[in-house]
Amino acid sequence: MTRVVLATHNAHKVEELRRILGPRLESFELVGYDGPEPAETGTTFAENALLKARAAARHTGLPALADDSGIGVDVMGGAPGIFSARWSGPRKDAGENLRLLLWQLTDVPAEHRGGGFTCAAALVLPVTGAEHVETAVWRGRILDAPRGDSGFGYDPIFQPEGYDVSAAELPPAEKDRVSHRATAFARLMTVLADRVPST
Amino acid sequence: MTRVVLATHNAHKVEELRRILGPRLESFELVGYDGPEPAETGTTFAENALLKARAAARHTGLPALADDSGIGVDVMGGAPGIFSARWSGPRKDAGENLRLLLWQLTDVPAEHRGGGFTCAAALVLPVTGAEHVETAVWRGRILDAPRGDSGFGYDPIFQPEGYDVSAAELPPAEKDRVSHRATAFARLMTVLADRVPST
Repeated sequence: MTRVVLATHNAHKVEELRRILGPRLESFELVGYDGPEPAETGTTFAENALLKARAAARHTGLPALADDSGIGVDVMGGAPGIFSARWSGPRKDAGENLRLLLWQLTDVPAEHRGGGFTCAAALVLPVTGAEHVETAVWRGRILDAPRGDSGFGYDPIFQPEGYDVSAAELPPAEKDRVSHRATAFARLMTVLADRVPST
Repeated sequence: MTRVVLATHNAHKVEELRRILGPRLESFELVGYDGPEPAETGTTFAENALLKARAAARHTGLPALADDSGIGVDVMGGAPGIFSARWSGPRKDAGENLRLLLWQLTDVPAEHRGGGFTCAAALVLPVTGAEHVETAVWRGRILDAPRGDSGFGYDPIFQPEGYDVSAAELPPAEKDRVSHRATAFARLMTVLADRVPST
């Protein structure tokens, strides 16, 4: 098995990506990361994903995957965007972030609540330093109030296009099939399979 | 004197605009407004300024001026934008709004703190319903901490281009000369003088 590192300290995220990729992982073994994490000083999802993947590739010597994701509201010009995780401040409290966004959008009528989740998924190879980023958007709209218990982050207030439920009400297997992270990483796996010999 | 109504319940804003326009008001008398105010349901500064001016023109039968203004941060895609006054929620607490924006931008280095104040100033004429909007931007950058006591809103954390001080440290007469509101309303006055006979 060829090992590939996912640049996150969050074991839950490693599990989630294993689930998302499923058989597409083929002969790659996805491992977690406990090395140094860089400051996320980029101004785009892609830059931040690359910063994280570069740090993990450098520290482990393995091909490294990373992602940076967030929610964007059209009428806010795409904000919260890269600030999604720290929307209510550096404490990164997901519940406070969600409540603040709802609060800000109080008077915004349904027809102007369009938005989407964006995921930039990055691959950085050791030695050569070759880099690749895939960005995917999951379109939908921002609800008036949270719905559902599964998922995390802004899932309870996001209703994906084509569904009558929030992302936190979707069966996890369904979310893993259609989400922004699923789409971005599925695309990136074809690049990985192409560039990295699996053993 | 031909009366022109400024669509705001805030007497301070009427005074400020009288000061900004000074001799440009010529034979127009600027009066305040205490009629019904519309919900600001627009998705742009210009739409919101027009909503306010239309309501005042309809209610008073006078030529009506209104503005919608806010701060935008480049790295946030122009947010807070039209949400500036309610950034921390519908309580519209200016101090909380300012602190939240600083908090969100905690890790953003100086070179990515560019932004600007935008003002859309609208003129709506009664009877014909003719409409005109001028939009002006005052460029600068977002400081790390508040500076200065004059001004209002986000002034203490905004350093205009060409100055070493915040907008809240500028002498008021200087701010009245160069701000986004000054520029937008100065342009609009030439339209007003052109369209409305002064007596």
